[in-house]
Amino acid sequence: MKKSISQATIDRLPLYFRTLQLVEEEEMDIISSDELGRRLDITPEQIRKDLATFGQFGRKGIGYDVHELKDKIGNILGLQNGWRLAIVGVGHLGGALANYVNFSSLGFTIAALFDNNESIIGTTVNGLTVNDAACMKEVIADQEIDIGVITVPAAEAQAVADLLVAAGVKGIWNFAPIRLTVPPNIPLVNEDLSIGLGALSYHMSQE
Amino acid sequence: MKKSISQATIDRLPLYFRTLQLVEEEEMDIISSDELGRRLDITPEQIRKDLATFGQFGRKGIGYDVHELKDKIGNILGLQNGWRLAIVGVGHLGGALANYVNFSSLGFTIAALFDNNESIIGTTVNGLTVNDAACMKEVIADQEIDIGVITVPAAEAQAVADLLVAAGVKGIWNFAPIRLTVPPNIPLVNEDLSIGLGALSYHMSQE
Repeated sequence: MKKSISQATIDRLPLYFRTLQLVEEEEMDIISSDELGRRLDITPEQIRKDLATFGQFGRKGIGYDVHELKDKIGNILGLQNGWRLAIVGVGHLGGALANYVNFSSLGFTIAALFDNNESIIGTTVNGLTVNDAACMKEVIADQEIDIGVITVPAAEAQAVADLLVAAGVKGIWNFAPIRLTVPPNIPLVNEDLSIGLGALSYHMSQE
Repeated sequence: MKKSISQATIDRLPLYFRTLQLVEEEEMDIISSDELGRRLDITPEQIRKDLATFGQFGRKGIGYDVHELKDKIGNILGLQNGWRLAIVGVGHLGGALANYVNFSSLGFTIAALFDNNESIIGTTVNGLTVNDAACMKEVIADQEIDIGVITVPAAEAQAVADLLVAAGVKGIWNFAPIRLTVPPNIPLVNEDLSIGLGALSYHMSQE
């Protein structure tokens, strides 16, 4: 089923999910939109509006059931799929992502690493051996990879995207500073660290 | 002067700026909103609307002057300030950021690195020696640091933010998965890699 939910709302759902995980670890069973808002620096009205998009949650004057809400948001985000990731390009950024612990708390598994540099192939990062990029198709099938993470230089990124799509990944997360072309049925998310820094510079200039 | 520009527009400006840099390197002097849109996968209407926020640019039927537009967007973003960054926490992510080349093309300089781990202090990353975090105040003053980049674990992030503010930084870029409290005159941008991955999972689940 295709729903029409704004990108801004979708972008807030992982924040809600992770906060609810923390709240669950604190053994709280019920949380109000006020408390959720305080923890996230989002207005309670915004939170109630976002959650109302998906149906009836919570009870007026009482709050949301933490476990129910967390599971529901996880399902909306598709986290129950337990997506398996492959990182292509194990330089500084790829290596950092391979070690980034928060992905597993969201249900993602980093299951394969690739590089084309002879001095990197065969080394171990966070318990995974770096594969030769020439074996991408075989390893991606064998490891049942869902998501390809591209952390190669911009000039190589489109070729890597093409290889990943041919190997059967269902989605691409791109860190190379270039717009990629992929088939319309393959979701693509571009991550650009310059955007946050540019926004910070803008706000500092206004002070 | 404080202007009211939407966050979504501000977030697109670094993309425009970097694309115009590339266009400039191709020795193009004029670019149309159609061509800019094609390169960025943004509609020409959106581009014209964004740029109109800042005044009269371009000429109907001809296009935008690449150099003029690039300089103007750079000025709006405050890139001419040549902000100097310090990275606190030289683990995998901090190390990756210290090596991230795109920052310098936007006019940012990574000028100092800090850690509190004895085995990391004194090592060299991308030509910079890692300082003892205990010397943060002195080094930040000496190196005229403007922006503190926080890449420490969540549990240490607020203490680091407090130290950075006390040392006189003008803005904070936070990668720790926690909401920080800083004075209202210190712009804070939170970077959360889970958001992009969550959005990708959502879109994959809709396919």
